[in-house]
Amino acid sequence: VGDLPSSEPLYYSDYLQLDRLLASQRLASAAGGQPVHDEMLFIIVHQAYELWFKQILWELDEVARLLAPARVAETAMLRMVARLERITEIQKLLIEQISVLETMTPLDFLEFRNFLIPASGFQSVQFRLIENRLGVRPEDRLKLAGNPYTAALSEDDRRRVEESETETSIFQLVEAWLERTPFLDFGDFHFWDIYRGAVKQLLEHDQRVVATNPNLSEPERQSQLASFTQTFALYEAVLDETKHKALVAAGERRLSHRAFQAALFINLYRDEPALQEPFRLLTLLMDIEQGFTTWRYRHALMTQRMIGRRVGTGGSAGAAYLTRSADRSRVFMDLFQLSTFMIPRSLLPPLPIEVERTMRFRFEEL
Amino acid sequence: VGDLPSSEPLYYSDYLQLDRLLASQRLASAAGGQPVHDEMLFIIVHQAYELWFKQILWELDEVARLLAPARVAETAMLRMVARLERITEIQKLLIEQISVLETMTPLDFLEFRNFLIPASGFQSVQFRLIENRLGVRPEDRLKLAGNPYTAALSEDDRRRVEESETETSIFQLVEAWLERTPFLDFGDFHFWDIYRGAVKQLLEHDQRVVATNPNLSEPERQSQLASFTQTFALYEAVLDETKHKALVAAGERRLSHRAFQAALFINLYRDEPALQEPFRLLTLLMDIEQGFTTWRYRHALMTQRMIGRRVGTGGSAGAAYLTRSADRSRVFMDLFQLSTFMIPRSLLPPLPIEVERTMRFRFEEL
Amino acid sequence: VGDLPSSEPLYYSDYLQLDRLLASQRLASAAGGQPVHDEMLFIIVHQAYELWFKQILWELDEVARLLAPARVAETAMLRMVARLERITEIQKLLIEQISVLETMTPLDFLEFRNFLIPASGFQSVQFRLIENRLGVRPEDRLKLAGNPYTAALSEDDRRRVEESETETSIFQLVEAWLERTPFLDFGDFHFWDIYRGAVKQLLEHDQRVVATNPNLSEPERQSQLASFTQTFALYEAVLDETKHKALVAAGERRLSHRAFQAALFINLYRDEPALQEPFRLLTLLMDIEQGFTTWRYRHALMTQRMIGRRVGTGGSAGAAYLTRSADRSRVFMDLFQLSTFMIPRSLLPPLPIEVERTMRFRFEEL
Amino acid sequence: VGDLPSSEPLYYSDYLQLDRLLASQRLASAAGGQPVHDEMLFIIVHQAYELWFKQILWELDEVARLLAPARVAETAMLRMVARLERITEIQKLLIEQISVLETMTPLDFLEFRNFLIPASGFQSVQFRLIENRLGVRPEDRLKLAGNPYTAALSEDDRRRVEESETETSIFQLVEAWLERTPFLDFGDFHFWDIYRGAVKQLLEHDQRVVATNPNLSEPERQSQLASFTQTFALYEAVLDETKHKALVAAGERRLSHRAFQAALFINLYRDEPALQEPFRLLTLLMDIEQGFTTWRYRHALMTQRMIGRRVGTGGSAGAAYLTRSADRSRVFMDLFQLSTFMIPRSLLPPLPIEVERTMRFRFEEL
Repeated sequence: VGDLPSSEPLYYSDYLQLDRLLASQRLASAAGGQPVHDEMLFIIVHQAYELWFKQILWELDEVARLLAPARVAETAMLRMVARLERITEIQKLLIEQISVLETMTPLDFLEFRNFLIPASGFQSVQFRLIENRLGVRPEDRLKLAGNPYTAALSEDDRRRVEESETETSIFQLVEAWLERTPFLDFGDFHFWDIYRGAVKQLLEHDQRVVATNPNLSEPERQSQLASFTQTFALYEAVLDETKHKALVAAGERRLSHRAFQAALFINLYRDEPALQEPFRLLTLLMDIEQGFTTWRYRHALMTQRMIGRRVGTGGSAGAAYLTRSADRSRVFMDLFQLSTFMIPRSLLPPLPIEVERTMRFRFEEL
Repeated sequence: VGDLPSSEPLYYSDYLQLDRLLASQRLASAAGGQPVHDEMLFIIVHQAYELWFKQILWELDEVARLLAPARVAETAMLRMVARLERITEIQKLLIEQISVLETMTPLDFLEFRNFLIPASGFQSVQFRLIENRLGVRPEDRLKLAGNPYTAALSEDDRRRVEESETETSIFQLVEAWLERTPFLDFGDFHFWDIYRGAVKQLLEHDQRVVATNPNLSEPERQSQLASFTQTFALYEAVLDETKHKALVAAGERRLSHRAFQAALFINLYRDEPALQEPFRLLTLLMDIEQGFTTWRYRHALMTQRMIGRRVGTGGSAGAAYLTRSADRSRVFMDLFQLSTFMIPRSLLPPLPIEVERTMRFRFEEL
Repeated sequence: VGDLPSSEPLYYSDYLQLDRLLASQRLASAAGGQPVHDEMLFIIVHQAYELWFKQILWELDEVARLLAPARVAETAMLRMVARLERITEIQKLLIEQISVLETMTPLDFLEFRNFLIPASGFQSVQFRLIENRLGVRPEDRLKLAGNPYTAALSEDDRRRVEESETETSIFQLVEAWLERTPFLDFGDFHFWDIYRGAVKQLLEHDQRVVATNPNLSEPERQSQLASFTQTFALYEAVLDETKHKALVAAGERRLSHRAFQAALFINLYRDEPALQEPFRLLTLLMDIEQGFTTWRYRHALMTQRMIGRRVGTGGSAGAAYLTRSADRSRVFMDLFQLSTFMIPRSLLPPLPIEVERTMRFRFEEL
Repeated sequence: VGDLPSSEPLYYSDYLQLDRLLASQRLASAAGGQPVHDEMLFIIVHQAYELWFKQILWELDEVARLLAPARVAETAMLRMVARLERITEIQKLLIEQISVLETMTPLDFLEFRNFLIPASGFQSVQFRLIENRLGVRPEDRLKLAGNPYTAALSEDDRRRVEESETETSIFQLVEAWLERTPFLDFGDFHFWDIYRGAVKQLLEHDQRVVATNPNLSEPERQSQLASFTQTFALYEAVLDETKHKALVAAGERRLSHRAFQAALFINLYRDEPALQEPFRLLTLLMDIEQGFTTWRYRHALMTQRMIGRRVGTGGSAGAAYLTRSADRSRVFMDLFQLSTFMIPRSLLPPLPIEVERTMRFRFEEL
């Protein structure tokens, strides 16, 4: 809590180091003798981005710390979730900031753009650290004009980013945590058997309805029956561990089969007390991914508007690059794919009482 | 436009001075040996505020520069308006940032709050400069625990803020610009006479309807007729320059009578080409005032939630202070009051052709 | 899950009843022969409000249902919290909608305003139902020009609103739920004794520091010591049940003493698994209150801007009424006041192991 | 302005037709005997969308009316711009509403999804009308499972949408208005010659610098010189009317050469009084396009999250369809491409005084 205040007064401006902070805006255009008004906005927006990136890293680091133990403390769940929620709030700012930057017109940008070459937003070390911390894989990185994504960085920065590639990512920590979920196999209860049974029952019922529906014309019936084959294949790919592994090898899925099962389990039984916070955690990971995806997209639109088909100051292909990059930087795609494999709760058999009990609080039986 | 890039590569991180920027977060709680996680957020949020305050000052300074000449260039109108519009976009960020800060709970704040004493948000020099630049008057400032609003600042900062009180404010520049509006009296045309006539006609018509409406009961009629007296008095206070001056002296109005007339004229005839941008300028001044008012209010709610009835770290009365302060810091209240005095356009006689012509473009008669 | 689709195609427009929905905008100004363009916006904004109010009531009703049992199901917590979270998302829309309405200028409003008299936004039945559902008390309602707040409603609507005053409010349900919190007294553990002890220790320590701090001047010391008296009184009022009841009687506090204790307990020990969702529930109640407060405030600002000091179409005192009303409509003020009484976690003795255990999951001891 | 109120009181709920509005939510899942809580949200969100679509059409219709005359009134510019600005504010709501819908989880959606088949969001007639009103061309429409985009509509609705394809679009009106810009050729002044000259000078200067820069290595020099060829070709395609027409024929550009010139002129000389509002109009058209593009993108992300790889209720390919559709629905792409062809203002020769004068106000020479 800290002691009572010392007699040395702490000034707001000293505490925030405002003398340095507010002296860190040097207009490149001023060097040419003609400072361009809008360059200040360009600098401030990017500096604000970097402040928020620092905060996001700060939060992700703590989440990683809390997720690291072989047994994640249940008392840490709320805190982890709160950290992730904070990141989603910050992301709203990041997106809003684009609207502020868009108050600069292309013609205004043109007045100082040449002074910036070859600096470019692609050189944000912190953003790369965030991506690596979350779990973007080096092999999923787009080349930047034939060079690795770190090429435009200074020596020191490159090293820092490359090191971060080797650290355990949030993705890996979450995957391991999911794999340890204790309820998937519990005594005689095996979630995967239950799930497989429910899927089978659902598809057979649907098929029967189509086969016998007197209101369908014959071509309609055939077409609908044909589409079941596709649906079966979709479920097969998730039910069968070998097929799942093949998808992972092909880069279409990333979570291990066990982790995927656990994520599905948590979604289907999220109302159980022990799964409420885990469910929120998974949801927030998707929210964060969606936040960055949206930000990248809005950023690409803005760049396109600002420089059209010109080449980006970093030598990139500009807007087109950004759009492609957005797709390659997704980490938790599997969580988004879960919805494909959900089945209505009413089709799931109730959990055995002893499984249910273990996910409840002790006090509930007082 | 700048020359082609020099051969020295300009790094993004150097350009933005990130080494300084990202090394300027020193947790006061770390001094006690136990850094508190959420203090980082507290620092980053306030630093981001300061960056944006710098940008707002940068924009206000240019607006002041463009408004300063005895004859404001018509070619400068779009730029001025764009600067003000940018400020309103930044204000949305300021307000959003409160939602980010609110992800810190009161209990988290309590962990490092004592380390900050007596620093406090009331010490933001830049925010005081913004207020003074806009036109908050020293005499409208609330005392802070009996002391002037600058008391908590360091020697240097106090001087800077006090100097800014003596500079010409945006309010004063706008008032002078309004007073110079050339169309209020133009040949035989006198806007104020036209307006007075229309008001008279409007009120007499309404009175007649009430007096003769067979559907009204006698008490209703009397009550409605009585309310006209109040309405008359309201209009009298604006029509009569002497009464207007009395209101100014009493602090209830701030714009000069002439400027008030011009603002009303611009609102009523805003579709005339020469008034389109002036109308937007007046609207944006209101938007900016509303933005700060809303921000102060949200800030007060947040403070109340964070510290309850505790005393603010700056020794202020906390939340209550903030609420009162919000009301005292309004500069363009007169513009908000204009709506009281508007009359439907259909009741206004058309402008004389020669007045209208002068507000049009030359090319329109090609 | 529903059967497979019937052969009757369900059209989007039929499902949404768009023929009725989109035929429900009748411009009052059209009756006068001259439809005013902006009246459409006025209607659409208010209709959108009413749609969202319906949704909010729908969510509140379910929350009330889930909170009603003598023992609230732990499996219902996530759902309740999700309902409340949804309301906060809707509130953001409500606030954003004001920005849309503000694209109408006062002069535009003036063109059709008279057609609306005496209809007014104060007549939204659904908003009154929301307030009553949450727990605004009839005795806290402001009179509207001397009349009860329901005066402007039609016969039927008035009856509906008055009935809602007698239903059990969310406030009452939450209070009862808090009072039943099983951990406040558990064997030898009595939270209130622990809390009282920690408060005493905290204040004595602070007092000692001030009394002996050699850096303080004598007047400073006296002033700071005097302020402790005030702090003591503040804590006394919460520690002593009789004083608390007096505050309730005086209308300064609303929650029962027991419920207040529980709310404090939940905040201080929120990391315990059994308190994580309860903590979120309390937080969301504050968020919702803050959402409505902010909305009312923004609405008041907008009204002031739109009609100035004119009288509202409903005959109210317009903007001033709205501001005052905002303060009177707060239901969960006590939750905001909790922060006044929080003490740093480091000062709290750890919970006895048997209390802690009961708030954990069964599986944790596997 | 309307007469004084009649003696018949106008109730808020009658004015807004709330009895119909609030009785238009019929849960399809209720038919199955088990109403699903979240279906209400689904209905309300879509109904709110439709209300706002109606408002957007209302605004677009007025813009079209004001743009229709052979000589657009200069006094109509502010109003047009205000209408477009209002649309951008509404679009923010549309995007926010996605966040509200996302409070529904995939599992919740699954509970009532089958009841909706085959209704689908693709059947919003009003959204199709908006697109056609703006100027999406029938030939740019994606097929929906091999069928025209109107296939899923009812007979009446299809006719309405198809008729709207034949009406003059905002795109066509804007193009014609741009083509009539009177300043492009004015006496001896020919904007296109000036522009061509400035481009030539710019490129030659840049080329010279590269050719003689001693800091460049020979390969760098060759690479940079080679990139000029590409740049030349880019400018050629816009400078040469024949090449421009070829691009139009190829579907890569849409505005006529003359209109493209005018749009560029307005951007470069936007500070001239007569161009200030035209500049804002062009900017707002881009804002609106960007608003819909962003909305479509967020909508696609949400769909992906909600249904994964399942097939959309309308039988579409779901999320993938939405993404592709977003690109095909752009109308004002040419305006976004303008930035490619801007040159710094400092390189433009000043306008001849007689051209400048004609774009100023009459009163400026008083």
